[in-house]
Order: sequence, then structure tokens, then C-alpha cells
Amino acid sequence: MITLGIVGAGQLGRMLAHAGWDLGIRCVFLDPADAPPARGLGPIHRAPFDDIDALHALATEVDVLTFEFENLSAEALARLPSTTPIHPPTRALAIAQSRRAEKRQFEALGIAVAPWRPVDSQADLEHAADALGLPLVVKLDRLGYDGRGQEWLREPVDVVGCFNRFNGAALVAEQRVPFDREVSQIACRSVAGDLALYPLTENQHRDGILYRSVVAPMADELTQAAAEATSQLAAELEYVGTLTVEFFVVGDRLIANEMAPRVHNSGHWTIEGATTSQFENHLRAVCDLPLGATRALGPVGMRNFVGSLPRVQDVLALPGVRFHGYDKPPRPGRKLGHATVLDADYTRLLETFKTLDERFPWGGGA
Amino acid sequence: MITLGIVGAGQLGRMLAHAGWDLGIRCVFLDPADAPPARGLGPIHRAPFDDIDALHALATEVDVLTFEFENLSAEALARLPSTTPIHPPTRALAIAQSRRAEKRQFEALGIAVAPWRPVDSQADLEHAADALGLPLVVKLDRLGYDGRGQEWLREPVDVVGCFNRFNGAALVAEQRVPFDREVSQIACRSVAGDLALYPLTENQHRDGILYRSVVAPMADELTQAAAEATSQLAAELEYVGTLTVEFFVVGDRLIANEMAPRVHNSGHWTIEGATTSQFENHLRAVCDLPLGATRALGPVGMRNFVGSLPRVQDVLALPGVRFHGYDKPPRPGRKLGHATVLDADYTRLLETFKTLDERFPWGGGA
Repeated sequence: MITLGIVGAGQLGRMLAHAGWDLGIRCVFLDPADAPPARGLGPIHRAPFDDIDALHALATEVDVLTFEFENLSAEALARLPSTTPIHPPTRALAIAQSRRAEKRQFEALGIAVAPWRPVDSQADLEHAADALGLPLVVKLDRLGYDGRGQEWLREPVDVVGCFNRFNGAALVAEQRVPFDREVSQIACRSVAGDLALYPLTENQHRDGILYRSVVAPMADELTQAAAEATSQLAAELEYVGTLTVEFFVVGDRLIANEMAPRVHNSGHWTIEGATTSQFENHLRAVCDLPLGATRALGPVGMRNFVGSLPRVQDVLALPGVRFHGYDKPPRPGRKLGHATVLDADYTRLLETFKTLDERFPWGGGA
Repeated sequence: MITLGIVGAGQLGRMLAHAGWDLGIRCVFLDPADAPPARGLGPIHRAPFDDIDALHALATEVDVLTFEFENLSAEALARLPSTTPIHPPTRALAIAQSRRAEKRQFEALGIAVAPWRPVDSQADLEHAADALGLPLVVKLDRLGYDGRGQEWLREPVDVVGCFNRFNGAALVAEQRVPFDREVSQIACRSVAGDLALYPLTENQHRDGILYRSVVAPMADELTQAAAEATSQLAAELEYVGTLTVEFFVVGDRLIANEMAPRVHNSGHWTIEGATTSQFENHLRAVCDLPLGATRALGPVGMRNFVGSLPRVQDVLALPGVRFHGYDKPPRPGRKLGHATVLDADYTRLLETFKTLDERFPWGGGA
């Protein structure tokens, strides 16, 4: 029996706990919420994510520590007793928390990113607009997620006073990438350095929130390029656990967008659709167990339910569809559940997604 | 949110509770054991299975009632208030509890069974031996499982005094079936009468206990015959939930062996290997939700761990293998866990099973 501490008891923690149940991995959570999605699947320490005493108590109680989201204090984690391993490494967490650090890491490895500039003043922003041209997207360096903390600058007038609208926070300005597709590479690296790569997933966003992820046909060159970039990054970071890298596809090129040092929404299809899910492989990696095969078991994809959750019987009425509700109270822009679609035929799979769209229109938006 | 009462909190109850978690189905169990496998997944009423007051309390607390094994009192269930639906029907349970009733039910539907006789005395047994010939297998009419309560009569001397060795219990004597293979048909029937059929599974037993179940290539005629017999049976019983029928294959014919009015060990592969597992479909059926697709996602099978459980890291070292431990103390003859094997290639799948055999020899036997 292995006891795993998870910082965060949201739906990702919930899915991790499920994945570990029959492997003899018991999860203990830290989360400030009253009724987080992982409730009922293990003890929860109710404390803020940066509560160093609570983190310390959790670390001393468990065999290994991980986290299910990246907006927590890498510094606090790094100060915990080294007797409890923390996977993924806090360095990867710290890099993922800063868009600047992330882009510099990609660049250091020769992985292409969109032309960008750090922005710490209105003058910086104006220089960036001159150097990169419009349109530009301005993003918070830290703590942005699901499209929040972003602003598009399309006309020169948009640049005026923009920096002040972010209350003086550190920013990055990025050139718009005229992408054809967005894809993500989910990978899992073991303590011994073995790497397991999932098939690339094609992602669609709405209102800046992930809407749909499908294991779509992909040119070999793209598959290889994504695998190579992700392998390099994982090795460089001495990464342990599941790692996600999001890319833009522009023609036959990949542009790295961002990384997530954790299991990822675009990999939820792996629960039913892969030999081993991203959650189980994360557990296997952080608990130093052998990694599992990552093959897709056939055409498969995932559709998020955001803002409102359809009735389970209406979703299950569609053939080949599995339903996951997270037991969260509805709120605009909040991820409340998802459906996985499995089919032997890719065209029919896409038809089922179309039917999902018609019957359960996007309820997202923040 | 639906609350489901499950009589029994063993590994089958555990797998049901897991399957229901994201569907908004919460399970409440009744089980006399101190630490049954389903612990931690829902409240457990600690009471004997035939405790009518405890059953009554459970029934009044839940939206619908089901059971995970068949050695419980069908009479007690039938006396519960009719306001709580019980699925599968208690009639199916009562028939499955008696080998005589089961065989008569198969025969009434024109489903072939091995020639047999009811045996209530030594004289009955001797007549059966004369009429059916040796070898014969003598089984308890009720309460036998996993090869217990059976005796093979190979020579005339074996017949002598045999009846007394069963302490006067009602028995059946069956002619030996010179079978080529053993298969099981798992099906799930909805409240509305829809039927979902899983691919036939080929089963191997050791010491009378299920050892391995693999979705094996099968002649269309056998697939159709099994589907037809199971459909007939499910319709006749006005069945709701997952139903299993075990058959012997003799040449191109099927001989029905027994039925189980529940999710079944030979269907554990469906957790990872089918579009919808037998557990989820059982829940969907008994909670009156639409049934899910039952397609196998590729070559797949299951190996039981009986008597002793290997270390999880040793099992996971094999490619394409998933591990399920049931958190039960080891005991000879006890099912403690299983491994599911998934592979894109059937030949390689069988090689993995061979490796499982070599590394984790059968530890069964009662």
C-alpha cells in the first residue's frame, strides 16, 4: 500500500484517486474547498494551497507528494522536508507558472515558440507592438488559466493604456500565431527516465476554455516533432509524472504554446480510450512503478461540459458515450464534467460529437 | 443523484461503486464482513445477508436495490416493500440458486443442457448412474460455487455411499460433457427490454475456479446461438441488469452450464476492454438509464489471482497489463485480484498471458 499526497482535490485529484484505487495507492488531499470533487475518495486536509504547515503535515503523512494544478507555491513545496519525494519536480512547476520562464525553456531547447516580449511597462508594450506588429495577445506572466488574464490587441488604439488594465502585473506580449490546429502531447516519464507518449490530441477551445479533444489523424512529421520536443523537455527537467505540452500547428510546423506539469484536460479521453490512462501513468510514475502502454484503443475523444451539466440519461442515450460528472455546483465558465466518445469508426465518432453539440450546446463563457 | 443499495460489498460491489461514481450513482452496501473490498466507496450496513430488518432498512434508504452475489435469500428480498425496485428480479435469483430450477428453465426454453437427474437419495443416484452412465458429476442443488460442493464419480465404486457424503442435501447428477471450450455470454437488459450483448469470452478454470477469460475468436454460429439463448432467457425472466450464462462448446453446439444473475468474473475484462463495462451497464440498467455499447476495444482478456496476490510492480512490468487488487486478506482459493491484458495483436496478447503464467503461477486451490 502506497500513500500519495495530492495538493488539490479537484476533478483531476478525483480521477487520480480512482486510478489508484485497485493499485493499492491511497490518496490524501490538501484543498481549501468545502466539498471538492475528490471528496469521498480519501482524507482531505482543509487548508489553503500555500499553507506551509498544512503542506508539511501532508508531506510527513505520505510516501510521495504530487499536485493536480499549478497555481500553488513552488517555493513552499521546495521548502518541504526532502524525505518525501515530490513529483513532478518543483522546478518544472516553477517554470510552468511563468509564461516567460516557459518560453525561455522552450527556446533554450530549440523548440519554436511564437515571437514574444516580456512586458513590465506601457513602454515595453509599445515597443513590443512595434517589434512584433498587431494583432498581439497580452497575457499575465503568472496565474492566468482558461483564457483568463488575456487581452487581444488588434488595433493601435487597443495598445493605449493596456498595461494599466493588468494592475501593473508582469506580462508577456505574443505575436498571433495563424494556426491551423491546436494539439497537445501528453507524456509520462518514470523515475528511471523511461518516457511514454500518448497519441497527439487535437483540441478545440471556446471562450478560451478547452471544449473538445479528439485523437485525430496526424501527419507522421508532426507526431515525431511533438514527441521529440516533449522528450527533450521532460529529460531536461528530469521530469517524473505526466507532462503536457500544447502546440499550435502551422502548416507542417509546431509552435509550442505552453506546458502543464500535470495530468491535463486534453487527456481525459485516456481513461476509457487508452491502454493506460494519463492518471494511472502519473501514479505509476510518481510511485516508481513501471509505466503502462499508451496506445489509443481506437477512435476516441472528449467533450467538456462547462457552466452547466446535462442530465446523465440524455448524454448516455448517445451510442458509445461515457459520462463523467465532477459533483461541482454549476457556475459560468466552470468545468463540471465531460463525455468520452468511443467508436470503431472515426467518421461516426465525429458525427456523435456533432450530435453532442446539437443536444448540449456550449454553456461556457466566464 | 441516484442511491443504489447493493447486497454484498465484495469485489463486485466495489467495481459497481467505481463504475457509478461519475454517473452520480452512490452505493450503499449490506455486508456482514468487517473490512469487505467495497469499503471506502459508500456506507456499509454490517448485517447478515438474510437479516430482514437490515434489508428493509437498506431498501427504504435507497432508490433501487441490487445484489452482487446469489447466495442470499430470494424469499427475504421478495418480502421487501415493493416501493423500492429490486433488479435483477428475485425470480431470476431464485432460479439461479437451484441447479434443478436452472436446468428446468433452460430446458423449458429449448436450450440444451447436459443430461441430468435430480438426486434426493442414494437410490436416485444409482438410477442416475445407470441411466446416464459414468463418469458423472454430482453437485449440490444449492449453495455450491467455485467448484465447491461437487464430486466426480468415475468408477462404480465412487457411486457407493456418495449421497451420504453430501449430508442428505438435494443434489443433481450430470453427465460429463466432453467439451472443447467453455464460454460465457454476458448480457445486459434494460427496464424497457433492450438487450446489450458482450462478445463471448472463453474461460479456463483451475481447481474449479475461474482462472482466465479471453475474448477469443469464435465461429459466428456459436456467437449467434449464445446470443439467442441468452436473449430468450433474459426476456423470459423479464430480467433487468447484467446476466451471465456459461456454456460448454461441444463441436458446433452449445450446452448451457449455468447462469449468474449478476455481473460476473468472466466479464472483468470489460472494465478496460469494452466501450462500456458490465458494471456500468448493470448500473445503467437497474437505474433505468440507457444501455452503453458493448464492443470489445481490441484483443483483451483477464487473469485471476487466487490464494495469493503478486506485487503490483511485478505485474505492471508486463506491457499492456492493468492490475486490480481487491484489498482482501490472502486465503487459499480466495480471489484476491485480477490483471487485464490489452494488446493490438491477439497472438501477442496470448504471449503476455503465458508470461503471466510463468511469473505468477496459479496459487489457487481450496
